Amino acid sequence: MHSRFSLQVLTKMAIKKSICIVGSGNWGSAIAKIVGRNVLSSPDLFEAKVNMYMYEENFEGRKLTEVVNEKHENVKYLPGIKLPENIVANPDLIASCKSADILIFVMPHQFVRGTCKTMQEHIKDSALAVSLIKGFDKGPDGKILMISKLIEDILNIDCAVMMGANLAPEVAEEQFCETTIGCKNKEQGELLRSVFETDYFRCAVCTDIATIEMCGALKNVVGIGAGIVDGMGLGHNTKAAVLRLGLMEMVKFGELFIEGSQEVTFFESCGVADLVATCHGGRNRLLGENVVKSDKTIKQLEKEILRGQSFQGPLVAQEINQVLKEKNMLEQFPLFTAIYKICQREMDPREFINCLRNHPEHI
Amino acid sequence: MHSRFSLQVLTKMAIKKSICIVGSGNWGSAIAKIVGRNVLSSPDLFEAKVNMYMYEENFEGRKLTEVVNEKHENVKYLPGIKLPENIVANPDLIASCKSADILIFVMPHQFVRGTCKTMQEHIKDSALAVSLIKGFDKGPDGKILMISKLIEDILNIDCAVMMGANLAPEVAEEQFCETTIGCKNKEQGELLRSVFETDYFRCAVCTDIATIEMCGALKNVVGIGAGIVDGMGLGHNTKAAVLRLGLMEMVKFGELFIEGSQEVTFFESCGVADLVATCHGGRNRLLGENVVKSDKTIKQLEKEILRGQSFQGPLVAQEINQVLKEKNMLEQFPLFTAIYKICQREMDPREFINCLRNHPEHI
Repeated sequence: MHSRFSLQVLTKMAIKKSICIVGSGNWGSAIAKIVGRNVLSSPDLFEAKVNMYMYEENFEGRKLTEVVNEKHENVKYLPGIKLPENIVANPDLIASCKSADILIFVMPHQFVRGTCKTMQEHIKDSALAVSLIKGFDKGPDGKILMISKLIEDILNIDCAVMMGANLAPEVAEEQFCETTIGCKNKEQGELLRSVFETDYFRCAVCTDIATIEMCGALKNVVGIGAGIVDGMGLGHNTKAAVLRLGLMEMVKFGELFIEGSQEVTFFESCGVADLVATCHGGRNRLLGENVVKSDKTIKQLEKEILRGQSFQGPLVAQEINQVLKEKNMLEQFPLFTAIYKICQREMDPREFINCLRNHPEHI
Repeated sequence: MHSRFSLQVLTKMAIKKSICIVGSGNWGSAIAKIVGRNVLSSPDLFEAKVNMYMYEENFEGRKLTEVVNEKHENVKYLPGIKLPENIVANPDLIASCKSADILIFVMPHQFVRGTCKTMQEHIKDSALAVSLIKGFDKGPDGKILMISKLIEDILNIDCAVMMGANLAPEVAEEQFCETTIGCKNKEQGELLRSVFETDYFRCAVCTDIATIEMCGALKNVVGIGAGIVDGMGLGHNTKAAVLRLGLMEMVKFGELFIEGSQEVTFFESCGVADLVATCHGGRNRLLGENVVKSDKTIKQLEKEILRGQSFQGPLVAQEINQVLKEKNMLEQFPLFTAIYKICQREMDPREFINCLRNHPEHI
């Protein structure tokens, strides 16, 4: 399933590839640090300059892109981490992406559709996209649409994915971790590995794209559950049980809704490892804890904890709840269902564990 | 794979079954609380009195068994938790077990061989054993011998196993958790479920006995690795990667050394869940943390932290290292190998992560 990057194959492909990073939050900036260095160490393969599309903002009276390009640091979203000088922040989306061979999407999922629509007609037909975005979108039919599929549909190019236990600040500090790349074939896999792999950021490549992406979305629902356990002062056994039951609902969801979803994919970093990291260090865990400790709504907690940004978990919980309800499958997913109700404040979080006592996994 | 306990089937089996708990440490006492209650709630199935074999000790000038039977509390190993009055501590091993139909083994693994030898010739031929013991033993050929196999060989009866994310103090407090029962057939599974399952202790039953047992031993090796990550002040990503790479080495070990080992067993509580609990709350994690923070030997740390008891992880690491070395397979298990060397103080724990950067999983 995994394949080691082969320099020979890639250099034969001849023309240097140009990379654009579409997005520039903390994860985008952490990955820019890796990509910027990797292209410099493979000058035969890649153009040295890497555009990073950045939504323009004001930062202490100046344009954020100017400050970033002067200081080589994303002073707003990843302060304290130096970026390679070949990473160039650019507020013009079309100028950033038009000559790119590889488009790395890394932005909140609600902005993807609009961004892709602006890019449409301006990108190379031969470009390869890779999505680092966690979450789902909704198709015109109201059904769940994977972000990679959304990108493919609008831009008419292939879209790979990369997900794993990759909390951005730790990656930025070069702490050892792993990730999972999902793409269509070996050639794409080798190319993307050469873009992303470092001695502290280890890549495994597989083709089960949709399962990888689903893990990236659903883990945040389970993370809320882990936070509820913490908020109630329960211990390691209960948290491990919630994590495992969440994992089994993720596997089940894959079986039912993803063609060709493989159990083995859940053993990759995008599966079990990201779930472990999310259930111990993610912000959806923090949300779960706060849901127990206060009576505030999710909106209020977002305002207080994330200064108005959205938690991913409740959105995904709502989206999958709609799908499961339509298919009359709610009882097969008691954990997802309970977390949806708790986020809606329709259920007391103290009832969470009671919803798991007769889980289908125990029958 | 899982099957729900059916009262009809069991009551048809007629004669009431008698249970003996062989061992009485903190896990033994926590499980005694469950078993004691369960037999009372199924008076048609089980004899009310449950013998708990207890190695006699002095407790504040009195015999420990006397104090336990008077106070209905294991004042030495699980203080503060009331035991049902039908749990009767008995210092006479043969008297405790001779009329038992179900023998629950729960003691440190180094005592199993001697205990079984004493029991030999005194137990019922039709008895069923179930081992709750984590760890391996060594056969006369120097090879790894599962504890359940050791019990079967000496006593000439079937031995099931039960393992999972079950830290004893949390089970004693009735916090929700799951466990995995491994046994030969559905009938044994239903019987054991009726012995152990409660609304806070949920059982799943499968037949991959050796894999379940192997998980119970190997998880402690990985737990040391998680502790090393903590000791070095690294974050969630690295810990998740170590946990996952450890899990993959466990899967690989199963593939190579256990006939019929199934990947799906690692999704049970005995696999991923117990690993998560061990890597966050187990005492082998604590050992790993201390191995980084001091230069003391494992023996010294055992004296300080466990007052002379043994950590499981280093013993298991050594046993599997011998096997892997003989088979010339050390490079396939860089995590297990590094932890062995670190426990021997042959390697600086700060080198641990460097041993994982080119893990076979990344190739």
